[in-house]
Amino acid sequence: MARPLVFEKPLGMRDMLPESLVKQRQLESALRHCIEKWGYDEIVTPSLEYYDTVGAASATLESRMFKLLDKQGHTVVLRPDMTSPIARVVASLYKDVPLPIRLFYQTNVFRAQEKEAGRNAEFFQTGVELIGTESGDADAEVIALAVSCLQAAEVNAFKIAIGHVDFAGGLLEEIVSEQADRDRLWQFLQDRDYVGYRQLAGSLNITDTERRRLHALLHLRGGKEKIEEARQLTVNGKARKAVQTVVSLWEALEAYGVTEHLLLDFNLVSSLNYYTGAVFEGYAADLGSPLVTGGRYDHLLAQFGRPAPATGFAIKMDRLMQVTSIRPREITQRLAVVYPASSRQEALLEAQKLRKNGHIVITHLCESEEAANAWGRERGYEVLYVNGREERE
Amino acid sequence: MARPLVFEKPLGMRDMLPESLVKQRQLESALRHCIEKWGYDEIVTPSLEYYDTVGAASATLESRMFKLLDKQGHTVVLRPDMTSPIARVVASLYKDVPLPIRLFYQTNVFRAQEKEAGRNAEFFQTGVELIGTESGDADAEVIALAVSCLQAAEVNAFKIAIGHVDFAGGLLEEIVSEQADRDRLWQFLQDRDYVGYRQLAGSLNITDTERRRLHALLHLRGGKEKIEEARQLTVNGKARKAVQTVVSLWEALEAYGVTEHLLLDFNLVSSLNYYTGAVFEGYAADLGSPLVTGGRYDHLLAQFGRPAPATGFAIKMDRLMQVTSIRPREITQRLAVVYPASSRQEALLEAQKLRKNGHIVITHLCESEEAANAWGRERGYEVLYVNGREERE
Repeated sequence: MARPLVFEKPLGMRDMLPESLVKQRQLESALRHCIEKWGYDEIVTPSLEYYDTVGAASATLESRMFKLLDKQGHTVVLRPDMTSPIARVVASLYKDVPLPIRLFYQTNVFRAQEKEAGRNAEFFQTGVELIGTESGDADAEVIALAVSCLQAAEVNAFKIAIGHVDFAGGLLEEIVSEQADRDRLWQFLQDRDYVGYRQLAGSLNITDTERRRLHALLHLRGGKEKIEEARQLTVNGKARKAVQTVVSLWEALEAYGVTEHLLLDFNLVSSLNYYTGAVFEGYAADLGSPLVTGGRYDHLLAQFGRPAPATGFAIKMDRLMQVTSIRPREITQRLAVVYPASSRQEALLEAQKLRKNGHIVITHLCESEEAANAWGRERGYEVLYVNGREERE
Repeated sequence: MARPLVFEKPLGMRDMLPESLVKQRQLESALRHCIEKWGYDEIVTPSLEYYDTVGAASATLESRMFKLLDKQGHTVVLRPDMTSPIARVVASLYKDVPLPIRLFYQTNVFRAQEKEAGRNAEFFQTGVELIGTESGDADAEVIALAVSCLQAAEVNAFKIAIGHVDFAGGLLEEIVSEQADRDRLWQFLQDRDYVGYRQLAGSLNITDTERRRLHALLHLRGGKEKIEEARQLTVNGKARKAVQTVVSLWEALEAYGVTEHLLLDFNLVSSLNYYTGAVFEGYAADLGSPLVTGGRYDHLLAQFGRPAPATGFAIKMDRLMQVTSIRPREITQRLAVVYPASSRQEALLEAQKLRKNGHIVITHLCESEEAANAWGRERGYEVLYVNGREERE
């Protein structure tokens, strides 16, 4: 007797059935076509990496990684993202390839889930990495490419918010003397907990002017006019420099003609701590979480021994599926060529001919035409009953 | 200071770089296009499954599976194949979908490697499963589809060998009384160790006629004429019935007009023990290992509580890459639109226009035309230096 088996899957794991997969494949194809035009080459890295190489360098929290032991006793991880594996490749296999290097990927990544909450532990991303250019034009390129991707994926209403990690960081350093307080304010920004941020800012021992400046940070979300407001909020140094970088980035994006899809958000603080400069998040109408996240990460490559500036983004395919206007392509009417055993040869040849002419054809052996029609009706197939013997009689 | 990091990957893991990935994507697309025409729908199942469900039901040896513990303490495996996960889906999510069900997949599977021997621990497969038809016409369909796939993938010289697990099994039962001897002979057949097989057959306490019959099994590889030889070798029962199944299968394959690509191999014994009927392996010239493996597995679905006959095959993409005549598509000449900061806007707009017209375009900021040309030469780009200011002067 076969053992009874359960049908459960590990937490956060799921099957992708044909109905949704057809749509995902269409989106992947549209994105691939778009990204290739910008000179990016596709790469696939292994599903498993050593924790000490890619895992430790990844921006993903260690608690969210799938860690396991391989047969040799090393700790390995299911890749939590594609950015660190690509950094590994650029520093090793590609060490003699001159920079800048443009790579893209369309693959699955893994994040362990703690409890059953409908969150995926394995999900698909399409992303790009542009490695080796520190110019703001590189940031503009990946943001303009993100806009092109969302257009290619037929997302009707979207906005990409652009910020710079040094703006909030610099402003907090200018105003708040205690590192612990700065860290808590930063965390509130990451969590978008503006109530918590205001309460803490209200309780700090600072001047009223300084407090107003901390509160003003929360209002620095909008159009180009926010640049001047941001500049006025800063005194000098890091935050001021961040504003200058954003000015130059915005100019480049104007050159690309994509600013209608953009807004500035000076309190945008990425949840990933590896970002070092301009960061951005793309939102679509009716979607609470970002569809695209990206930004500059100038320190990661050095961890692999080939210091280089870099920027890139990742699109979450699950979320894109929810907001795309692309409808799964029409399933061509499926033909079922049904035949009795005596007409097998002509039926199978007929099926082959129909496939060559572009039809999707299923073949099925059935001795009675009536039963064949019932069989086809149940499955939604158009039935072509081939019975050459009868015709000849 | 950043920690020094090594570049190693876990045993059997590898990066797929653009040069080979472009070729794999083209092959996947050709196979997908072919398989869809036969009415198969794509499915993706999770990378991780519980050992107790999919792992235990899989035909893969337990020692070859990547087993690990999840956070809840359950043993999970990286999917060793796609056949058992698909059986799980057909018996659970698809339990109300009427049979037959046709599904295909294009994804990675995992096999743990014991030592460094250049063998992949993660590799890509394209495969199909036809579930719910016990007729030999279903076996013929998947074999004819395998032929279509190898043609679509432009494999110039290939042969698919067809056998039946019950032929050798039945013949051994007719002749060899001890189970242990039968098992050893079976293992020799699996390992294609014909010297070992002959030695053992020579040492058994059986009649000379019986010994001749055991030896004759090794010669049952060839064209349609081998059917008669096989029939003469058997007395009755299981082996004789297997011959009859092969006769009927061959007739169906003649109806498909594909027998020029086929041969019969009555000593073909699959290394996977879940096969229950007709089995087949596809070989290409100059390739020692099979490119395609497939066959009938009528007991697997019952392990998931929905008993149903089934057949299918998997194509190993690595091996297909070695024997396809498809050359990676020509990389369109890459244009590098290079510009000084003062001409950014017109350069970026020109790049967008060129992309719309089908060019692959990289943009690069560089203040000197001479340096831009040197930069392009080093990378093999055709350089278009856009300097509107100069032109206007």
